[in-house]
Amino acid sequence: MNKQQLIDNIRRKQSFLCVGLDTDIKKIPEHLLTEDDPVFAFNRAIIDATADLCVAYKPNLAFYECLGVKGWVAFEKTVKYIKEQYPDQFIIADAKRGDIGNTSQMYARSFFEELDIDAVTVAPYMGEDSVTPFLSYPDHWVILLALTSNKGSHDFQLTEDKDGERLFEKVLRRSQQWAGDGQMMYVVGATQGRMFEDIRKVVPNHFLLVPGVGAQGGSLEEVCKYGMTDECGLLVNSSRAIIYASKGTDFAEAARLSAKDVQSQMAAQLNNVF
Amino acid sequence: MNKQQLIDNIRRKQSFLCVGLDTDIKKIPEHLLTEDDPVFAFNRAIIDATADLCVAYKPNLAFYECLGVKGWVAFEKTVKYIKEQYPDQFIIADAKRGDIGNTSQMYARSFFEELDIDAVTVAPYMGEDSVTPFLSYPDHWVILLALTSNKGSHDFQLTEDKDGERLFEKVLRRSQQWAGDGQMMYVVGATQGRMFEDIRKVVPNHFLLVPGVGAQGGSLEEVCKYGMTDECGLLVNSSRAIIYASKGTDFAEAARLSAKDVQSQMAAQLNNVF
Repeated sequence: MNKQQLIDNIRRKQSFLCVGLDTDIKKIPEHLLTEDDPVFAFNRAIIDATADLCVAYKPNLAFYECLGVKGWVAFEKTVKYIKEQYPDQFIIADAKRGDIGNTSQMYARSFFEELDIDAVTVAPYMGEDSVTPFLSYPDHWVILLALTSNKGSHDFQLTEDKDGERLFEKVLRRSQQWAGDGQMMYVVGATQGRMFEDIRKVVPNHFLLVPGVGAQGGSLEEVCKYGMTDECGLLVNSSRAIIYASKGTDFAEAARLSAKDVQSQMAAQLNNVF
Repeated sequence: MNKQQLIDNIRRKQSFLCVGLDTDIKKIPEHLLTEDDPVFAFNRAIIDATADLCVAYKPNLAFYECLGVKGWVAFEKTVKYIKEQYPDQFIIADAKRGDIGNTSQMYARSFFEELDIDAVTVAPYMGEDSVTPFLSYPDHWVILLALTSNKGSHDFQLTEDKDGERLFEKVLRRSQQWAGDGQMMYVVGATQGRMFEDIRKVVPNHFLLVPGVGAQGGSLEEVCKYGMTDECGLLVNSSRAIIYASKGTDFAEAARLSAKDVQSQMAAQLNNVF
């Protein structure tokens, strides 16, 4: 999917919500455990209940890999289901990969060729040649970790160099030499609200993938105030607050209500730009 | 496996070789492609041919994931085969993971509980709480990226902060507050030979996992000169130079000869310390 298509979807749906499919077999409703593939059954129900309210889905690979082969099957089935049923969804493999060139090339092949996923999250620590193999697929995206939403983000990401540039700013600045805003987005945690001002100074036009709204405590209003552009420029992710809104047989309906609530807030914010 | 057991294995085998199982279906000998599981068939032959010459195996997850479900099956079979046939081998999942706490917890469960792998490579960018979930398993290890062997390592890892401390040094220093040398190792690329002196100033006793000898051009002698401790303190990885030593039906034999060559050089180096 290219940038204009994503913007069109956001405008049409009045939503920039990304639903995080962090599906933990230990947290899904008990009645699903008798299904052949409980994780996929859960995902399918969540997707059917939310697809008109969001523009993106983000399965987090860790939650699938921890189930071994079965998890990988559930992941692939989920991706295929979204692509077939809801082809206007932007699919993000939250994998946080990043390795030497020939290895990143293998990951790119896996996500972009085999599965035709739209975007992969990538860690910047290993630098340019660990990222560029992902960039040889037109209309497919790298979402680079810049400023994350966890406490440990302070350990290294905020370190200032001699010229006062913080590491996450350096990541934003340097990586723009590798790709433009048509193939690169950045992960910026919502818990760092006012940091969005600093970030927009470096990347005024890039889309930002924003986790941390909801369970992790970030405020949607603050994110929009400081981070929104006239093309929206935001994908705000919510995982647990939506997918685990209820643990009963009404889980999908509850997920829909929770997603609807976020989408309404988003529509109000979009009024300011579209 | 604990540190003393690893040192004992190194002493007994006169080797600190780690064989990287970067098994690319496009590079393995053609005659294996008729096997039910060509990747596993290749790995098993390589392992049988090299197990007495090395102390560790390091499957790189990317090469398995790119095959989807089949790849994950081959990975699990490989790990189980090593554990059953060669229980004295230290198994490293080269995954370069690192995510927010609850996600890293899932990865730790996957690698340490389900598969009982000895160590996982982890990227430091997200800081302490992305690493510590891996540390709650005694005798299981985090191998943290510090200074990698690729060109892109210069992009961020060498950035000096206000006090002249480079990012990789900060990673080495801070992460010692999270675990000691009984649960933490560091990835240090062999192509950065003289950097080992600086690294040993910060981590005098930790094991270092050293990629980049062989195909990537690093020198074993230089690594040992500057990086070896009186407990050895090194695991030197070689992947392509060993596993693809021949592409014919003699691939396993050729891998053995290549591994034997490295092991002999290592035995000479170990003479200086044991």
